[in-house]
Amino acid sequence: MGWGDLGAFGEPSKETPNLDQMASEGMLFLDFYTASPLCSPSRAALLTGRLPVRNGFYTTNGHARNAYTPQDIVGGIPDSELLLPELLKKAGYINKIIGKWHLGHRPQFHPLKHGFDEWFGSPNCHFGPFDNRALPNIPVYRDWEMIGRYYEDFKIDRKTGEANLTQIYLQEALDFISKQQASQQPFFLYWAIDATHAPVYASKHFLGTSQRGLYGDAVREIDDSIGKILKHLQKLGISENTFVFFTSDNGAALISAPREGGSNGRFLCGKQTTFEGGMREPAIAWWPGHIPAGGVSHQLGNVMDLFTTSLSLAGLQPPSDRQIDGIDLLPAILQGKLIDRPIFYYRGNEMMAVRVGLYKAHYWTWSNSWEEYSKGIDFCPGQNVSGVTTHTQEEHTTLPLLFHLGRDPGEKYPLSFASDEYQRAMERISLVVQQHKATMVPGEPQLNVCNKAVMNWSPPGCEKLGKCLKPPKSDPKKCFWPH
Amino acid sequence: MGWGDLGAFGEPSKETPNLDQMASEGMLFLDFYTASPLCSPSRAALLTGRLPVRNGFYTTNGHARNAYTPQDIVGGIPDSELLLPELLKKAGYINKIIGKWHLGHRPQFHPLKHGFDEWFGSPNCHFGPFDNRALPNIPVYRDWEMIGRYYEDFKIDRKTGEANLTQIYLQEALDFISKQQASQQPFFLYWAIDATHAPVYASKHFLGTSQRGLYGDAVREIDDSIGKILKHLQKLGISENTFVFFTSDNGAALISAPREGGSNGRFLCGKQTTFEGGMREPAIAWWPGHIPAGGVSHQLGNVMDLFTTSLSLAGLQPPSDRQIDGIDLLPAILQGKLIDRPIFYYRGNEMMAVRVGLYKAHYWTWSNSWEEYSKGIDFCPGQNVSGVTTHTQEEHTTLPLLFHLGRDPGEKYPLSFASDEYQRAMERISLVVQQHKATMVPGEPQLNVCNKAVMNWSPPGCEKLGKCLKPPKSDPKKCFWPH
Repeated sequence: MGWGDLGAFGEPSKETPNLDQMASEGMLFLDFYTASPLCSPSRAALLTGRLPVRNGFYTTNGHARNAYTPQDIVGGIPDSELLLPELLKKAGYINKIIGKWHLGHRPQFHPLKHGFDEWFGSPNCHFGPFDNRALPNIPVYRDWEMIGRYYEDFKIDRKTGEANLTQIYLQEALDFISKQQASQQPFFLYWAIDATHAPVYASKHFLGTSQRGLYGDAVREIDDSIGKILKHLQKLGISENTFVFFTSDNGAALISAPREGGSNGRFLCGKQTTFEGGMREPAIAWWPGHIPAGGVSHQLGNVMDLFTTSLSLAGLQPPSDRQIDGIDLLPAILQGKLIDRPIFYYRGNEMMAVRVGLYKAHYWTWSNSWEEYSKGIDFCPGQNVSGVTTHTQEEHTTLPLLFHLGRDPGEKYPLSFASDEYQRAMERISLVVQQHKATMVPGEPQLNVCNKAVMNWSPPGCEKLGKCLKPPKSDPKKCFWPH
Repeated sequence: MGWGDLGAFGEPSKETPNLDQMASEGMLFLDFYTASPLCSPSRAALLTGRLPVRNGFYTTNGHARNAYTPQDIVGGIPDSELLLPELLKKAGYINKIIGKWHLGHRPQFHPLKHGFDEWFGSPNCHFGPFDNRALPNIPVYRDWEMIGRYYEDFKIDRKTGEANLTQIYLQEALDFISKQQASQQPFFLYWAIDATHAPVYASKHFLGTSQRGLYGDAVREIDDSIGKILKHLQKLGISENTFVFFTSDNGAALISAPREGGSNGRFLCGKQTTFEGGMREPAIAWWPGHIPAGGVSHQLGNVMDLFTTSLSLAGLQPPSDRQIDGIDLLPAILQGKLIDRPIFYYRGNEMMAVRVGLYKAHYWTWSNSWEEYSKGIDFCPGQNVSGVTTHTQEEHTTLPLLFHLGRDPGEKYPLSFASDEYQRAMERISLVVQQHKATMVPGEPQLNVCNKAVMNWSPPGCEKLGKCLKPPKSDPKKCFWPH
């Protein structure tokens, strides 16, 4: 989902009354970011509070390449990483993940081995291979074992776009919340639904209800579900004791637009890129009785902050034996403070850009390769900023391209290198970058090796269902990451 | 000002708390349009309820050219046109225009000859010639006579951007409202401020206060002023008896961005074009006790509707002896109804596009000429949609380019000509266009002839001020309209 997909963020159809109301009862974050323009690294950063380049969710197979966890990925979240649910356990929390895990699907990466107590969902995204038995469809787990596969047992009609997955995930969430309230145990729920990822789907009740087409139907179903979750918390009388945060893992995928791709508002480009459209996210914090209603924050935030902020809410300290990139947002949320901190925009192993205050400096620019672009893969459809949305990897490390995101949120007008403003801003930014690079210790890259033999051929529980498939011979290879 | 300039419409700096509050107390129009992508024709349409091609505010000097009322224009609003204030007089209204008139500056076009009782402001925009006595600066009138000129008596510091014009206009508005309230007379106030037009200015108190730079300072001052006007109405106890509507006369001028140009959100291109960015406008209706708070309307609206709606509010019928394009919006505003009506996008004498429902068909596309573009004049900076943002006038009358504005508000993905959807939508649209063209009676074009002799050399009142300038010999010429 992109920054521009909610009514509260200016989507012209304004079809998200529940999220808009959540914002009006809580706090809207206008300058909130993900840690990567792609799913897996972003989710690894959310759960570890650390940049993907530290927690291993990146590749060194190519320079500045986005990588994730497809079915043939060998790596996953290292045991050495401390995940939010692992830490929350110390404070007595019961942790559940509903939906997409995306931190590796081999046995050692199972979410219940990394702090979660319950799981309902899938290790990978619901796309491909679409019921072609030559390759396994993605399994859906309940806790330790699979209970079926997408397209086989959890239907997604690729023609009509009908699927009731979001409804299933909603019911799981409501049930879990009820159970925790009944047992008076504190809980952490990571509601990581697949929608609005392509192939886009919505349940029957929502199909055809949006002005925006199928993608809008999916957004409306998410909006409706979140409204139901918030109302459920209120009905159970625990809303004033429950912190809720809504955000997304990357910008809208413009390559799927208009049928299956959303909106990044007026920001440049989309998913896969380190322009604002790829990494600035819609974000809303909600906690009635604590967060002043109708708040608006310009705090530079990041999904990694949800790690540190959640620990803070549980009265826990973040680990002190490693670099944590997430900050505690509570002073911003509860007291309206502005905490000075940079935002780093990584693509794989490269720091492409950095934001300090309202300035954003690009050290590298790249949309995608000419080769991909000539095949019609366009991360910036209808947009073209000369020298900025480049189709070759352009290095600007000695003279970064600098934008003022207040005057120019669309990254169209680089500041003159000769201007005083450029000099002053870059002095400040250079120090931040210097410090960042000097102390950077990259983790072991997890997304370098692919092997068809590790795919979800025979997940635990497949025997009972008669759904085990025979894996091919092991054939480890360097994964190919085109962008 | 553009659609994307208000926080309520998704401007990322969200610096318009008063307008956002006006929206939350009133009704936000998301699909509201101007009648022309340029100032003078748009204002003529607002005050007559008729398309510029009917009321004469267009040119036939070239095909599909935008024209306005610079100082050397010979034409203006014809006496045969009935203006809103003329009609409101019949219901006992006192009418005042504060700010820019723009319907012609020669004696016969004076606003007090067309229904207004009071005027404080200027006949033309505040730009050029900037205190160059070779050509007259724009006069500022109080009622019948000028009381000074821009840059001479009403200072605008072009270096710092400082000017207190908006404050002067605000005070005039507050005083007029107080006076009318005291005398218990119904009033119509047309608060037609110059800001945010380039050269952009703001008063000292607002300079440097916006994240968005000088343009944002001007927006903040407008926002603050509107908050003061609304509060004044409340303080005087007449807010429940006063209908207030906020909108703009064209999309943000992207050629002036980023320092002096605003935002059209995610819409395509800007001022001067018939893409959404040129003509879709921010719009808010406010009338406490009548309009349900927090309303959102998808009614297709147009500035011309303010003519008919205002008459309706005053218990008057629109003239029946001529075609009126504006509709009465009250059913949409008070009862949430959706009235089926098309939006026509004209550029000069050509119907470039039409919107029916969520479909928009382009019969002609043009951004600007290659000649202008090569000089750096770009109405769509950073945007380029192949075959759509064309630099030659492209005719599509036999096979219009069709967009679905719900799925594709950015006009990036024309529908396939061969699709059933295209066929069905165009059947409906063709009927609307056929009917529109069959009954179209263009007015006498007012914007064809220019003559330096008619400039504001010696406006009434100049003698008292010693500000009369000597006009040159009459030299009427065809005006040159490059885009």
